[in-house]
Amino acid sequence: MRIVDIRETAIPLKSKLANSSFDFNEMTTSVVAAITDVVRNGKPVCGFAFNSTGRYACGAQMRARFIPRIIAADPDTLLNERGDNLDPAKIFAVMMRREKAGGHSERSIAIGTIEVAVWDAVAKIAEKPLYRVLAERFSGGKVPMKVFCYVGGGWYWPGQTIKDLQDEMRRHLDAGYTLVKMKVGGLPLEEDVRRLEAVLQVVGSGEHLAVDAPCNFTRDEALRYAKALSPFKLRWFEEPCDPLDFALLAELAGVYAPPLATGENLFSTQDVENLARFGGFRADRDVIQIDPPQSYGIGQYAKTLDMLARHGWRRSSLFPHGGNQMSLAIAAGFGLGGAESYPGVFGDFGGFADDARIADGAITLSDRPGIGFEGQAALYKIMRELAGI
Amino acid sequence: MRIVDIRETAIPLKSKLANSSFDFNEMTTSVVAAITDVVRNGKPVCGFAFNSTGRYACGAQMRARFIPRIIAADPDTLLNERGDNLDPAKIFAVMMRREKAGGHSERSIAIGTIEVAVWDAVAKIAEKPLYRVLAERFSGGKVPMKVFCYVGGGWYWPGQTIKDLQDEMRRHLDAGYTLVKMKVGGLPLEEDVRRLEAVLQVVGSGEHLAVDAPCNFTRDEALRYAKALSPFKLRWFEEPCDPLDFALLAELAGVYAPPLATGENLFSTQDVENLARFGGFRADRDVIQIDPPQSYGIGQYAKTLDMLARHGWRRSSLFPHGGNQMSLAIAAGFGLGGAESYPGVFGDFGGFADDARIADGAITLSDRPGIGFEGQAALYKIMRELAGI
Repeated sequence: MRIVDIRETAIPLKSKLANSSFDFNEMTTSVVAAITDVVRNGKPVCGFAFNSTGRYACGAQMRARFIPRIIAADPDTLLNERGDNLDPAKIFAVMMRREKAGGHSERSIAIGTIEVAVWDAVAKIAEKPLYRVLAERFSGGKVPMKVFCYVGGGWYWPGQTIKDLQDEMRRHLDAGYTLVKMKVGGLPLEEDVRRLEAVLQVVGSGEHLAVDAPCNFTRDEALRYAKALSPFKLRWFEEPCDPLDFALLAELAGVYAPPLATGENLFSTQDVENLARFGGFRADRDVIQIDPPQSYGIGQYAKTLDMLARHGWRRSSLFPHGGNQMSLAIAAGFGLGGAESYPGVFGDFGGFADDARIADGAITLSDRPGIGFEGQAALYKIMRELAGI
Repeated sequence: MRIVDIRETAIPLKSKLANSSFDFNEMTTSVVAAITDVVRNGKPVCGFAFNSTGRYACGAQMRARFIPRIIAADPDTLLNERGDNLDPAKIFAVMMRREKAGGHSERSIAIGTIEVAVWDAVAKIAEKPLYRVLAERFSGGKVPMKVFCYVGGGWYWPGQTIKDLQDEMRRHLDAGYTLVKMKVGGLPLEEDVRRLEAVLQVVGSGEHLAVDAPCNFTRDEALRYAKALSPFKLRWFEEPCDPLDFALLAELAGVYAPPLATGENLFSTQDVENLARFGGFRADRDVIQIDPPQSYGIGQYAKTLDMLARHGWRRSSLFPHGGNQMSLAIAAGFGLGGAESYPGVFGDFGGFADDARIADGAITLSDRPGIGFEGQAALYKIMRELAGI
């Protein structure tokens, strides 16, 4: 049993979205296919993944370093103890050969995407959904039937009216979501507060609304927003400043009582531990939103969860970034707080299985083996063509 | 006046070196040529740089994002106020468009290398050595005649004897250096101490010797090494643990009185500020070793120095990583503690001008315009061919 080839293709996201600090016009993502010599139904088992959204494609690193290291390794050294499946940890270790300490994001996105594709293959070889494989391995076998899921929306659009924004939020509620997230920081504070109050009219109260700032507030701006947002008791206030400015995060945690959130721009377990140690983040309420395929993959995510547990964090405080079937499988398999959703936003790369259903804020899980991309027709077409199956 | 093209080529370092945590067999570097339409002596003025050593080539990011953004910009918007030269800060800002917060090393190496090449062009257009341009801009015009320079050596070689190591160190002293650095962590502590004592016999005392660990010591190992090394009062103990483990760095700073050093694996001003805030680093003795071309370039380095000054750091505590003419020009132009040197180690990419002289631990500066690669025949051949001049 072996991986015979790993292929990558960079695909534009084709998103016209803008948040208040950057736009997605040039944004790409790396789609990866890990092709094995295991045959099921007359076809090779292939694992698929993509590098989530918000970070550019990274096929060059894959082709120069990580894919050749895997393909050059003795295949028997990449199998589990029983020899009946691939071992993602051993494949990860091979990718990390000849890599220097630090400098995580230069490699963590490429390695993490390949690693998640390997997990997809592992679950397909085991003929189980990935969330079930993860639950058995990392969560005492507890398999949920559905996962809490909220909508990341409320972006700024040219010409957008307050009513447009309210209509968008109404659509999310009608679709079955109970928590929505909107952008702040793209307009002066007073106008942002007006937008927020309009959305609150639709969703009812702060517990049904989170806000997402663009990471670029100065200290003064962050403190002003914290003060203005505080009375609304929102579900969380996300990315209120530079994601590595642990001193300012700690200062905000000292003055802003409702939950804060961050983590999608941290790419290593050590960075997340620094957030826990120095960022003032409160294990009893705050939210951490690591993106597993962008930060070395699922095995490293498990290590990050163990580290966070030592700092008193529960898994229910973790919401993986992404809004795709990879984060959904991870949220389900590890028993996390929930997943996010970007309906209709990131082209073929946002969203879940075509037959997934949302009700009462939760999304159903399918029993397709692996991550379940086979149930997402438009995305799976790209993946199937890449693998040549 | 404009940049007409920016070219990159990835070159293997051809180094057979190994430190105790990884080897350089696959290591590459990106050589960059920024070709302007300014003509001197019948040829276009070209700025050159490479992405230092220890981080892989990053031409894909350059070609996908940073070069097209520069070339697509209105050339007049990339000039200084007088319109008589390129403005590196404006070119940097263009490269940062559509980049998300955090995730620094994925872009900082590519952007920094291009930025340093732009500075080389700027200095050549101004017909001054780069260190002079930097001294005028960032250091009140104080231009040194020479720069303190130490040797990074003492690597582990297969079959190496203690006498081989002593002979190497003698060669460094004979060449004019007064401070040498050796690796630790590749052998059990007791053997490393024997190596170190043998080197001390050659160099005389701890102030002439620094040690460089491989960033991968566990807490126990780091504390054991700190305890064992402490009595030798070495010039510094470098990379004693994970470069982002600020808690452990602070713990080490609490028990190890002589200087500690780190920084070559930090790629953003915010990471360095976290080191200053949370890493227990002592402004009165410790050493910070950022690599400017790997961390967004010279303009960002100036901002990092300003940030460090607010935390009480003097420039004499800064030793830029690299061992090449870029770090030398930066050390001279900003009036830093000194530069490092890797004679004969990184093929064409280590070392200084062919006519540079070392005496009493200091290296002479040339008056060639720009960084001075034109005085480094083997390296300049690669650059000249890349630019087609």
